[in-house]
Order: sequence, then structure tokens, then C-alpha cells
Amino acid sequence: MSGTQGQVIKCKAAVSWEAGKPLVIEEVEVAPPQKMEVRLKILFTSLCHTDVYFWEAKGQTPLFPRIFGHEAGAIVESVGEGVTELQPGDHVLPVFTGECKECRHCKSSESNMCDLLRINTDRGVMIGDGKTRFSKDGKPIYHFLGTSTFSEYTVVHVGCVAKINPAAPLDKVCVLSCGISTGLGATLNVAKPTKGSTVAVFGLGAVGLAAAEGARISGASRIIGIDLNPNRFEQAKKFGVTEFVNPKDHDKPVQEVLAEMTDGGVDRSVECTGNVNAMISAFECVHDGWGVAVLVGVPNKDDAFKTHPVNVLNERTLKGTFFGNYKPRSDIPGVVEKYMNKELELEKFVTHRVGFSEINKAFEYMMKGEGLRCIISMDN
Amino acid sequence: MSGTQGQVIKCKAAVSWEAGKPLVIEEVEVAPPQKMEVRLKILFTSLCHTDVYFWEAKGQTPLFPRIFGHEAGAIVESVGEGVTELQPGDHVLPVFTGECKECRHCKSSESNMCDLLRINTDRGVMIGDGKTRFSKDGKPIYHFLGTSTFSEYTVVHVGCVAKINPAAPLDKVCVLSCGISTGLGATLNVAKPTKGSTVAVFGLGAVGLAAAEGARISGASRIIGIDLNPNRFEQAKKFGVTEFVNPKDHDKPVQEVLAEMTDGGVDRSVECTGNVNAMISAFECVHDGWGVAVLVGVPNKDDAFKTHPVNVLNERTLKGTFFGNYKPRSDIPGVVEKYMNKELELEKFVTHRVGFSEINKAFEYMMKGEGLRCIISMDN
Repeated sequence: MSGTQGQVIKCKAAVSWEAGKPLVIEEVEVAPPQKMEVRLKILFTSLCHTDVYFWEAKGQTPLFPRIFGHEAGAIVESVGEGVTELQPGDHVLPVFTGECKECRHCKSSESNMCDLLRINTDRGVMIGDGKTRFSKDGKPIYHFLGTSTFSEYTVVHVGCVAKINPAAPLDKVCVLSCGISTGLGATLNVAKPTKGSTVAVFGLGAVGLAAAEGARISGASRIIGIDLNPNRFEQAKKFGVTEFVNPKDHDKPVQEVLAEMTDGGVDRSVECTGNVNAMISAFECVHDGWGVAVLVGVPNKDDAFKTHPVNVLNERTLKGTFFGNYKPRSDIPGVVEKYMNKELELEKFVTHRVGFSEINKAFEYMMKGEGLRCIISMDN
Repeated sequence: MSGTQGQVIKCKAAVSWEAGKPLVIEEVEVAPPQKMEVRLKILFTSLCHTDVYFWEAKGQTPLFPRIFGHEAGAIVESVGEGVTELQPGDHVLPVFTGECKECRHCKSSESNMCDLLRINTDRGVMIGDGKTRFSKDGKPIYHFLGTSTFSEYTVVHVGCVAKINPAAPLDKVCVLSCGISTGLGATLNVAKPTKGSTVAVFGLGAVGLAAAEGARISGASRIIGIDLNPNRFEQAKKFGVTEFVNPKDHDKPVQEVLAEMTDGGVDRSVECTGNVNAMISAFECVHDGWGVAVLVGVPNKDDAFKTHPVNVLNERTLKGTFFGNYKPRSDIPGVVEKYMNKELELEKFVTHRVGFSEINKAFEYMMKGEGLRCIISMDN
């Protein structure tokens, strides 16, 4: 791959020119990686809700033209100055948040919210020089989440790249770049259910099902899925969900329904919808004395989480998590190993596959609520 | 002591005949302990805010005549049927909440909220037969918190009695029955600050200072005390508090003041006032990524804890605790050992001493906000 090192690469990328309009496959230029950057050849990428949310640009300052995409499996093409941990040919997963290994968060065993490379949805440029590495006809195209994986080549800060086992199939482990790790880690790293316990999962999309997968791996004996959409229940069984509650079927708050089903409350709950009322239910449904509720879903700007303080005082715990508390570089290689050891099942998350030229189909599936993850192969 | 076993004991008790009126030292009858009960000879007792709160009876259904008191050092006089773990002569601390060792809470390593013997402030009788063991001229006198230690003799459920090292001075370790263990355990068992960390303590009364003592024992390098009463700051220095913040001195929320003082937030906070706004501040002042806030203070009935869910999602933890998460029988003997090993200092909590005949003085000290703990010696 050294033939392209230090050179601008011309390649295909799916450019989003305008909010909510179909992406257009364009030939773009990808500049070489600068200091502490890595240029990646993307082999597989998948679509996550966050891409769609910022592509629709309904709730934020729009930034276009932009190359979306943040879940991917890739191979290092070349590295910039100062990069010693990676070399061309390494198999990697780019991640939308980073690990500089220098800041207080990176040095804390409890946090993964790196000061330098923490997710920034507004930034469309590289943090090193404030410029883009993508351009078309000399005009810059903005980055997204520091990853922009809807391109045959992309440039990423080294702190946002997890080097993984080269034997791992990139067309499957690519989903660990974001959503699946987020849900899985929420359960394994934060809720930490013990064997035989009861876990409630609010929201049975990809993140929630990954949380359920974490509960299954932990040996939970009851995994209760809560969703307003009963169509999701059948699929959820594959992820170890044993019981279902549709809040619409009850005329009392779902936390009361769950308390009745479980003699006082569940041992752990994981909230993956982002709806503030679901967050409150997820907290209030855990058992006093030992219950732990973990919030994963991202709320609206003006939401307020509200509960009677006695619910806290009765020895309940409320925790939030970001990217499943995984540190991208230190921990994600281990999650890939969990898949390689057959402890973690990823195949069931992959419900659709399309070629790069059909990337807009992936958006359609997601907007229709069809399936969990659509893998986009860059080679066709 | 076997001379009184199985007999009614006549002894002095400080009876509260009416809400808010001075206690009256009366001769009362104390019936023998029934099944799973223990009769204790109280040597020292101390006054806690909870006694005063229920004596004033402003916020609850009044229950009089009643014998208050729940912090004490005692010796077992006799035991009822089925009691095998205790025998006459054992040194003990009665506790206002219990440990049956049979329920799900007692069997959980995470909870101390025993289903059978959990604190019940409304109950004025023994749980075995629904009757009182105290009477005067044949008329029942109600119990308080299952302990009623303002009496030379009292009857307590065996699950509410911690057997301690007989070498421990009862006139000091008696304060471990409630408030001091509550604050200490909130830090040591729940907040768990690491060496060198920064801990904020809201409220510098006895419970808050015990929380600070826990932070000192944990090796916290900064302990920031927050109180509206600056008179408490001098005393707090003895408990390892290194800095003080009076919210009245600032025109911005105290959580912002603390964030500025600590480069983004404290590592741990412990809320000991029960004021709901202090609870919110205590949560919002902890650092993202790793901060843990622990609620100890008891709120008003209609309070709402309210925060933006993003404060949770940014990897903050909110936990509540009850009696410092100590299981009374299993864990309190170990807290006494901490004192015996000179790891924990108790002397500084004892600011006043009175004889039993002067018990109303202890109420006066507390109502004036003077001192921390007043020890009442039963022998004079």
C-alpha cells in the first residue's frame, strides 16, 4: 500500500450535499494523514441512527457538504507523523470518540470521555489543523464524527482507531464501532448484572438488543424487553429477551407493571430509547436495596429527569454511560475477541447488506425501521 | 443478671407524654423479652435529630406516650425464646433498623434494607405480638424505632442488636448506633473515594462530619465542606475538612463554584442535609466521567429531584444510602473495631455529656444547634 503513501488519493465517497437529500457517490480527493493521523481504506461500513439524525439535520446547525458514516471495518493505508502504534496493513475499527491516553479521563479507570477526542458532532474538520482532508475540485468536504466512513478512504485521528485481530471478519465486527458496543458495554461494564438476575431493557432497537445480548452473556435469567412496537418482540427473542412489556397495553406506569412482575423491581435496567419518561421508568423500576439503572439513550435538549429523592435514598443507583464505557483503543480489541471466542454473537445484528453504490437503500431501511444493521460493502 | 430474667423490671425511663413537651423521668415497667427479643440494660444513650423530629411530631401522626432514643451502648440483661446469638452480659449496640438474615435484602451483598426489620417510624409496638413492652400503671407506653433507649431497660428485636467487642467504651461507641455510621458508611461503603481524591460534603452536622471522617480515612486530599452556617467551619477542620463553601457567599449555583474550584467537578459528593436543592447540587457538582454523588439526607415528602438527563449520561453516578449501607449485625461490630484500632476517631463527635435526669438539656443543645452529640449517662 506504500504506493499511495504521502499522496492525495482519488476515490469514491458518498457525499451528502444537502440535508435529507440522497447521498451522491462522487470522486473525491483524500489528503495524506498529518501528524497523529491515519489514513484508512474502508472495507465495510454500516449505518447508525446518528448518521441519519445529522443527515436530516433537523435539530442542529447543518454542515454540508459532508461525508457521514462512523461504523466501519478498515485497513490502515498509511500513517502520519508521530504514529507509532499503527502501521499500513493493520486491521482496525475507527471510532467516533477517542482515547488520547494522556488526559485525566484516559488515565482514569472509570471514564472513557477523553478530553481531547470526545465526540463532537459539530466539528467537520480535523482537530490537528482545523482543516478537512476531503475535497472535490479543490473545495472542502466536511468530516463527520472524525470518522467519515462512507468513503473508500478516510483520515482519522490515531486516538480514534482501535487495532483489532486481523483474523476478525471486518464485514461483521464493523458494527462494534458504535451502537453494538454501546449497548453491550452498558450492560457488561456498567449495569453488571449477576448470574440469575432480572434485567429490563427499554427500547429494542440495535442498541437495546445489544444491551440484551450483554444480559444474556452475563447469565441473566429473565430479560424483559420494553417497547411500544410489538413487531420488535419476535426478533428480540434471538437476543435472549424472555418477556415483553408494551407500555401501551397497560393503564398504569410501566415501572409498576415491572414491579408486579418481579416482586418489587428488576435487578438492573438499561434505557436505550432516549425518551425521558422511559428514563424515569427505567430508574423507578429497579428494586430498592440493590437496583441499578443505566441510561444510554440520548435525550432532547430540554428534557428533565425527575423522581422523588426517596427512590434514590432507598439504595437505588442511577448511572449514565457513553459508548458502553469502553475506551476505544484499549477495550474494543477485547470486544472483537469476545466475538472471535463465540461469546458474543454479531451475525444476528446484520439484517441487511448492500453495495456502496446502493448506500441510499441503507438509509431507507433505517427510516422505515426495518432491521437492525445494514452493512455496506465498499467493493461494489 | 439472671435474678431479673423472666420478670417485669421496674426502672426509670424518660417518657414523652406529649409532642414537644419536656420528657418526664418516670418509673415504668419493662416486660420480659418475648420470642426473638432481647432485654437490654442501657448504659449510655445519645440524642439524634430523628428523636427530636418525632418528639416534635410536626410532620407525622403523633404517637404518645412514647419512649424515644435510638443511639445507645448496652448490655444484654436477658434473652427471649429462640435467641441463640446473644446471652446476658454481651455488650451491644441497639440499631433502629435490623437484619433478619433471612430476607432477600439480608441475603444480598448489596442491600441492608431488611424486609422484616427495616426502619418503621410509625410503629410503636413490637413486631412479634403487636404489643408494647413498656407500661406505667398498666397502661402501655409506645416504643420508638424498635429501640427506645431513653430507659434504663428496653426490649429490642434480636435482629436490631449488634454484638460488639466488650472492651469498647460504650460511652463513645454508642454514637455508632445511627448518625455516625450513616455518614461514615455513606463515604466508605458507597461513595468509596480513592486516595488523593476530592470529596464534597453537603451539611456539616454530625452525619456530614462523619462522612468527612470517612473521606479522611480514605485518604482524600481535598475535603470540601458546604454549609449555610459558617460557625460550623472551624469545628469541621477536626474532621479533615480542608476547604469551605458557603452557598450564601456566591451568586451562582454552588455546583458551579465547586466545578471552578476543582477543574470540572469533585470526584465524590455526599449530601447530608436532606434539602432537595442541595441534593441536585451534590449530583451536578461531581465530575463527568467518574463522579459519584451519594444521597444521605432525608427529603420532604413532596420534593422532586430534577436534573438534565445529560448530566447522568456524561457518566455520573447517583446513589442513595440508608444507614451507610451497613448491615447492623454483620457490619457494625467491624466499625467498632475501626475505632478500637484508632482508624476512626469518635471522641470529637462527643461535644456534650449529661446525666439521665438532665436529658431535656440534650434536647436543648440540639435545638440550638450546639455541638454534635450529647451523651446521656444512665447511671445518674
